[in-house]
Order: sequence, then structure tokens, then C-alpha cells
Amino acid sequence: MNDFLARLAGVIGSANLLTAEADTTRYTTDQRGRYHGRPLAVARPGSSAEVAALVRLARQHRVAIVPQGGNTSTCGGATPDGSGRQLLVALERLNRVRALDAANHSLTVEAGMTLAAVQQAAADADRLFPLSLASEGSCQIGGNLSTNAGGLAVLRYGTMRELTLGLEVVLPDGQVLNALSGLRKDTSGLDVKQLFIGAEGQLGLITAATLKLFARPTAHATALVGVWDAASAITWLNALKDAFGDRLTTFEILSEVCQNLLAHYHPGQLPFTAPWALLIELSDSGDSAELSERLVAWLARQDMLDGVVAQSETERQKLWQLREAMSETQKRDGPSIKHDIGVPSSAIPAFLDEAGTALQAAFPGVRVVAFGHAGDGNLHYNVSHTRPGNAELFADEPRVNEIVYDLVYRHAGTLAAEHGIGQLKPHWLARYKDPVALALMKTIKQALDPAGLMNPGRWL
Amino acid sequence: MNDFLARLAGVIGSANLLTAEADTTRYTTDQRGRYHGRPLAVARPGSSAEVAALVRLARQHRVAIVPQGGNTSTCGGATPDGSGRQLLVALERLNRVRALDAANHSLTVEAGMTLAAVQQAAADADRLFPLSLASEGSCQIGGNLSTNAGGLAVLRYGTMRELTLGLEVVLPDGQVLNALSGLRKDTSGLDVKQLFIGAEGQLGLITAATLKLFARPTAHATALVGVWDAASAITWLNALKDAFGDRLTTFEILSEVCQNLLAHYHPGQLPFTAPWALLIELSDSGDSAELSERLVAWLARQDMLDGVVAQSETERQKLWQLREAMSETQKRDGPSIKHDIGVPSSAIPAFLDEAGTALQAAFPGVRVVAFGHAGDGNLHYNVSHTRPGNAELFADEPRVNEIVYDLVYRHAGTLAAEHGIGQLKPHWLARYKDPVALALMKTIKQALDPAGLMNPGRWL
Repeated sequence: MNDFLARLAGVIGSANLLTAEADTTRYTTDQRGRYHGRPLAVARPGSSAEVAALVRLARQHRVAIVPQGGNTSTCGGATPDGSGRQLLVALERLNRVRALDAANHSLTVEAGMTLAAVQQAAADADRLFPLSLASEGSCQIGGNLSTNAGGLAVLRYGTMRELTLGLEVVLPDGQVLNALSGLRKDTSGLDVKQLFIGAEGQLGLITAATLKLFARPTAHATALVGVWDAASAITWLNALKDAFGDRLTTFEILSEVCQNLLAHYHPGQLPFTAPWALLIELSDSGDSAELSERLVAWLARQDMLDGVVAQSETERQKLWQLREAMSETQKRDGPSIKHDIGVPSSAIPAFLDEAGTALQAAFPGVRVVAFGHAGDGNLHYNVSHTRPGNAELFADEPRVNEIVYDLVYRHAGTLAAEHGIGQLKPHWLARYKDPVALALMKTIKQALDPAGLMNPGRWL
Repeated sequence: MNDFLARLAGVIGSANLLTAEADTTRYTTDQRGRYHGRPLAVARPGSSAEVAALVRLARQHRVAIVPQGGNTSTCGGATPDGSGRQLLVALERLNRVRALDAANHSLTVEAGMTLAAVQQAAADADRLFPLSLASEGSCQIGGNLSTNAGGLAVLRYGTMRELTLGLEVVLPDGQVLNALSGLRKDTSGLDVKQLFIGAEGQLGLITAATLKLFARPTAHATALVGVWDAASAITWLNALKDAFGDRLTTFEILSEVCQNLLAHYHPGQLPFTAPWALLIELSDSGDSAELSERLVAWLARQDMLDGVVAQSETERQKLWQLREAMSETQKRDGPSIKHDIGVPSSAIPAFLDEAGTALQAAFPGVRVVAFGHAGDGNLHYNVSHTRPGNAELFADEPRVNEIVYDLVYRHAGTLAAEHGIGQLKPHWLARYKDPVALALMKTIKQALDPAGLMNPGRWL
């Protein structure tokens, strides 16, 4: 191993090879504090060529590689094991814009750029890169790619996969796949880049990507609306699509329990409470006043319990802050068993009803905090107080997960809508995923990484 | 082989196993009349289970399979070889809607449904399935998937890949992969369905798909505009995106040569001619009159040579008919060497300029017919009259292709934007594609279809 580290230092420079615990500690614990790894070292290569040389060297020495972006995985996807034998590869020094083609609405960036920096690079060219999520200030685009990130604008713009035109990937054999491309249409062979999106680093290391940009909307109209039940929420979703088409950019829901938590920890901020609150945003070219007027006129014709439309950018930000405060607010109230689930939007009401009933039957007094991206069928469905006092919550986690996931799959859903699998959910994946699909994934892993050195011990 | 055919007849019914030439002939010649195959037989299975049984049987007997949808490939992708040993599998009897979930904006259909029937099933539920292309009346959704079809609305809605939520595939080992799904977001493992989209049947047989539906636009505004040069066309494209955002659904261009052909063969139809004509369509919720008014107001502020905005549905159809008549009009004028190329939109002017110059230098008097989906960077770039009289045109095809493709790749383009590779272009693919990408494709083929029985002799 010393020989390997010495040769690696020769490739990336000894200043970029960290072994002292004081230097590596910020890479070795995941952001939720749930996983603690002990790597052989932390390597910080500075270019794709260095990544490729690193992979070839690791292969010769049979050293496993755990890639890491902004270390914001909620599933321990970027934390090494405790063996002291895995090399953590931080991509953070690959943080340059490679090319901007505003007239083609495309931007080529390296994997280590933060999402916020990518958004800014697009904005500087009067373009929009629409991916938007809570950790955007620190998560990196390589991690967004490796987990096929979702977030707040998927309804209109799609997930990271749909925002990706091309990739550069260092393959497990150390070759560099140049599949960077600014093309919208290309049927010249298999679209091999698709394999690496959402692969959580198990098939190679993404080093750069060409991303789709969009015209920057100049108008926004934002409303918070209270409705009676989840079925009404889905009726609203489809009525909004009919009325406003692609202008509908965000459709988030918050249950009454969520609103009560917000009211408690952020007093005076919530304009009303209702069984369900909908955060709706339209965006468009043109100006905000006109778009807001159209939304107000449309809302006036709908049945609702309560509703407000932001009349200024400040008011708009206040509505968004409520939504964005949800995760942290819940954390302040104590631990919960979190689920990042997806079902067809049409199945949300039935799922919520059945899951709520089943959990109450198993754990009388249980609390469900449900909120999220209902426009994409993606809910954060968090369970606490399975027993009075909530102290032994995690003893109930297996049974809670089973109840929730059984119902998710009965509604043709997924146990990982946007956070991936990581270390947290491989055994659940093995239990619920189509076995033919799972076997096919493993066939691909075996074909691309027969030595099993790319982020091993996950789910492939 | 007789044993195989007898057992196959037992699986699919002898009425669905065609061996007489009178019965098989409509499957064995491609639509351009360029490829003529001689299959062992034509099998018409009626369900996914029958397809799976067929594949298992073919595997036992080492019989190669050539899948076919509507037989509209322009590259011979669905025509068997002349050996008399390949089994042509027509998916046309798998033509049912499996499930419609209007509230989830999703539709699950079998592979043998025509694109037009899928569009109609969506329309019947007041939804839009946006894929639209010239052969939509006869092409089948399985073929659209296997070639990642493009067409006229990619600019706004994406290619077939982006319109696909889930797939059912019979794998080369005869197992059925159930990756049907109505989910917009799913990070539970590799997105294995991506492999089969654009694979031209070389990795398995797609038997069903879950497709994305959209709110049906109620307003259309359509204009034909004349501009000075290709650079202006791209400036217009981006100005339209800025002004109208996602409303911009179609942006097609026609060169002056194209317009002259239309004027000659369809006299009185073209409202004007110009160095370049742009066919622009916006779509939206709301009503057409208002949207057309907005387009007229915007056009009034632009520099142009000439322009008309359709004032009625009849006028709109007339403008579209001109665009749609282009392929057939060109055919009437004689043969041409066709190219289905893509470059970044921003590179279209330079590509056209350089390719035109290079072809004129090599073949003085050559005629270039360039038209197509400039909004996606995809042009149909067809070359004729390399010699006076155009009689020995195809003798010049290799040199013409080389000139065109060299420049396409100099501009980071593709030699197959939306028609695939088929039998027509494998050697060109081998010449121009990144070798690491090509090797990776072959690794995947070997892993999934080690016996090489799925549409063999193509490009994998």
C-alpha cells in the first residue's frame, strides 16, 4: 500500500493525497452523521487525465475506489467502509467550466463544480440550468449525475438524466470515455452515457458533463393554496397542467402535520393552515405581474379553503422559505424514519390513506410528516412517535419500512425516488426490485468492472 | 429447421407463422426498396409471453431474430439478410393499450401499436402524446423506441427516450424484463430500460412501453418566415426561445433549393421564396387567435425578408403541407444521397457553409437539398447532381459521405441524428464514433447476448 500511495502522490501531487485524520475527517462522515468511514487515503485529482491515471494505478494494486462530490448523500453513498483499504476520490478540484455554447443552450462543466456554480454560470450567459435542490450550495454536479438528482423543478424540466446531453467518464479499466456532446438528437449507436447516470459511481467516475440550458424565465407567479384532501391536490395538479401547460414549474404539497410544525417553529410565517397546502409556481417569459394576474384570475374560479398569491419577489421568497424550512424544522422536532418514495401522482391519495391507516394500526399514535414533490409523485414520507416519547424509534424502523414499502410497491412505486440507494437501502432494493432487472444490473456491473473496484459493497 | 418451425407454430399458431413468399414479401423489402431479405419465416406472436417463448425456442435452435415494427426504417434496420436462416419477428399483433392513467399523464401500450394509434389513444383521453413524424400512420411504437425516434416536436418535448417512462423487454435469454413504470423519478438502481432505447433490437425485443403524456395544447400559432442566411435562422431560433420559452414547439428550415423544388412541383402553394425559410410553430393552452396575435406582434418587431402567419386552421395545414411534401417532392426530382445529420444548432451556419464549399469544389454543379429540424440541430442534407444528368450519382456516394461526415464530426456532430444506423451506416459508425464508446457498446452486447442472436450483422 505504501508503494501504491507513493506512486499515487507522483500522479496527483502529494499535497492532494490526504492521509492524516485531521485532513480526511470532513470526507469520511456522511452529512446525516449516520456513516463513518476510514479510507486508505483521500485523493484529490485535478484533471480527467489524473483521474484516469489514478484508476489505472488503483487497478494494478487492486485498490477499491469510492468517489465523492459534495458529500451530501442522504444514503451514505459517498462514505467509504471502515476497512482502511478503500481510496476516497474527491472530485472537488475538477471544478472548471470547459465550454459554454449559449446559442446551442449547452454548457460543459467538470464534475466537481457545485450545482450553485453551474446555475450561476448559466445565469451569467442569460440562460437557465433548472436543477434545483436544498443542498445546491455544496452538492456537486458529478454527484447529481451519479444519483440522477431530482428536486424542485422536475415537473417541468425533468431529472438530471433529462438535463444531460453528454458525459466524460473514466471507466474501470482507466480508459476515458468521451461522450461529451451538445446534440439533442443522436442515434449513432447505444447511448452509453445513460449507464453512468444514477449508477452511484459503481461503473466508473464521471469527470465532466454537457448540460442542457434553457431560456431564462423572466416571470414567476407563486401561490400557497389550502385544500381539503390529497385527492383534491391531484385534481388541482391536473387542472393546473390543463390551464397553464409547461408554465407549471413547481407543485409541492405539505400535510397539516407539516404546517403545524412550521407554525410552531416559525410562528407568524404561515398565512393559514389547511388539511393540505399546495405550493404552486408558474414561470414564463414576459413579466411577473401579468402572470400573477392570470393565476389570480384562475384561482378565483376554483374551490379552495384558503389561498395567497405572492405580490412581490419578497412575498414569493417567504412562501419558498416555508417549503425549504421543512426538513430542518422536522429535525428540530426530533428524529424520524425517512422515506424518499415515489408513486404515480394519481396514486398519491390512495397511498397516503392506506399507509396512514396501516401505520396507525401497527403503531397507535404514530406521526407521519408527508411533504414534497407531488407533481412528480415523489413524497418525503417521514415517520416518528411509533412509541410514546419517540425515544426507541429506530427499533421500529424495519417494520415501518416494510409497511410503507409494501404499499409503495402495491401502487407501482419506488423506494428511492431521488436520493438513490447508497449504503442505506441495498437490502430493501434486493427485496422489492424486479429480479430480472436486478440480475441485468449485475450483468452490466460484471461486464464493466469485473474486478469490482468501483464503489464496492453497495448494491451492484 | 423444420423441427424449429413446427415447435414455433405450436407456440404462436400456424396461421401466424408465414413462410410462403406471397405472405412474407411485404416484410422483406425495406420501404426505400434498397434492401431485400430472405427470412427463414415471418413470425407474428400475439403476446409478450409468446415473444418470450419464441426467443427461448430460437435460442435453443440458434436461430437469429430480426424484429420488425412498421417496416419504415430508412436504414434497412428491420430487413433480414439473404441467408434464409434469420427469423423475422413482426410485432404488429401486440397492438393493445394496456393501461391509461390520465391523472398520471401516462399510457402503457404494446410495441406493435402504430404511432398514430398511440397519439389517438392519448387524444381520446384529452392528452397529448407529442412524438410526430412523417411515417406516423404506419411506424410502430416499438420501432420508435428501438431507433429513439425524433421528428417534429423534439425541440419542445424531446426524443422518444425522453418520452418513455417504462419498458417491457424480452431479453436474449427469453426472460421478460418488467420495467414498465409510470414514475417520473426513480433512483432505485440502474435505469436498465435506457439500454434498449435506440438499440435497434440488438439487445432484446421491446414488447410494451409506458409513455409520458402531456396536457393537450389548445392554441397554435404558425408562421413561415424568409430570412437572408443560416446565421439569421439560428439568431431567430434563440430569439424565439427567449420570447416564447417552451411555447416554441417547431422550428424547421428549408433552403432556397428546397423552396424552388416546392414551387416547381406544387405551383402556387409557396407564399414567397427566400434564401432560407423558417417554419415556426408555437403551441399553448388558451386560444389560437390570441397566441397568433402575440406572434404577429413579435414578428412585426423583427427584421425579415418576408413572412406569413396562418390565420386559420386551414392556412396552418397549408404551411405544414409544404414542409411535409419536402421528402416526396425531392424524390420526384430524382435520386439523392441522403444524410440524417446533427450538429449543435449554433454550428449549423458554419457547417452549411463549409460543406457547401467542399462539395462544390469536389463536384462542380452539385445540388444540395438541406432542410429539417434546425431547432434540434438535425438536418436532412441530401446531395445530388454530382455529375451532369445525375445518372451515376451513387458512384460518388463514398466520397460525398466522407466530405459531409468529416465536417459533421469537425463540428462535434453525428452521422445519425434520428434514423439510426441499420444496415446502411455500420462502417461509417465504425469510422467516426469514439472507439472507447464503440468498445463499450460491444462489451454490453456480449454481456447481454453472448450467442449474438438478436438482430445480428448490424453494428454491435
